[in-house]
Amino acid sequence: MKKVQRRNKTLDSGRFENSAEHSWHVALMAFLLKDYFSEGIDIAKVVKMLLIHDVVEIDTGDTFLYHEREKMLVEHREENAAYRLFGLLPAPEKDEYLSLWLEFEDGVTPEAECAAVLDALQPLINHLITRNENENPFGLTWSQVIEKKNFIKSISPELWEVAQNLIIKSVEKGLYEK
Amino acid sequence: MKKVQRRNKTLDSGRFENSAEHSWHVALMAFLLKDYFSEGIDIAKVVKMLLIHDVVEIDTGDTFLYHEREKMLVEHREENAAYRLFGLLPAPEKDEYLSLWLEFEDGVTPEAECAAVLDALQPLINHLITRNENENPFGLTWSQVIEKKNFIKSISPELWEVAQNLIIKSVEKGLYEK
Repeated sequence: MKKVQRRNKTLDSGRFENSAEHSWHVALMAFLLKDYFSEGIDIAKVVKMLLIHDVVEIDTGDTFLYHEREKMLVEHREENAAYRLFGLLPAPEKDEYLSLWLEFEDGVTPEAECAAVLDALQPLINHLITRNENENPFGLTWSQVIEKKNFIKSISPELWEVAQNLIIKSVEKGLYEK
Repeated sequence: MKKVQRRNKTLDSGRFENSAEHSWHVALMAFLLKDYFSEGIDIAKVVKMLLIHDVVEIDTGDTFLYHEREKMLVEHREENAAYRLFGLLPAPEKDEYLSLWLEFEDGVTPEAECAAVLDALQPLINHLITRNENENPFGLTWSQVIEKKNFIKSISPELWEVAQNLIIKSVEKGLYEK
């Protein structure tokens, strides 16, 4: 996980963030932002989910959110990775962590929805803060980003406001095309 | 946190681990190893504690466990850092996270004890796996390591067995002097 490179940078901008760092970041965000989700949510479960959500990348590497074809192709490989990696745990942890990862992937339960929102929000913050002005190496457009992130709206309208502000500021900084 | 360098290395051995990566690692260990601690323990609180236990290092940097004098001198600076950094949060999070950090530092409650054990165990695993044979750059001895880690015994005898095995294997690998 400490060797899986993501597309976002770290604050010193000298290198790319890895999946262990990203997982720490989103897990802490879950505790800090829990009040922006429905009251009955099991935040410890969300945190556990976020700590393991990218573990499959040990086998597959990180797949860029905006590479539609690769995203589709990697799904099956990620599932195989989940069976292999969580399969290394003794029962009952094996079943527990595999179920938890599958729950995250399905994205249907309140905890999986919450985890998905945080997983989508962290890169927006990171991207805005760490990238230089007019740095848009993948030629991303405003509408591409909105399309990927607007699921946040129905889960947490307040965090969707935050996400929209981050996207607007990123466009102003030249990080996404209008 | 992603820029605070620790004394342990990552699996590829090419660089030193940072405090964000370490925090992810110990937080996940807490969930996985919860059965090795007393039954009534609030593991979500332990995880929250571990996700923030090194945040003060944003201001102070990491201090090497075996540098006794620096460890003593940094205590006051770490407390100032806690007040500054958690002070950036809105109330009531400010008070909650500051208290949680102080609880970790005091090391008295079952949750703080559990967090301390995991924080002491992770570097032992990491060190044994990532260092090359006979690599002992700080000239550490077996007894120095035992002295720092033997508090684990009274908190979790089973994990103390694990720790002892890791230390013995590390001596055999030439990572600590006999």
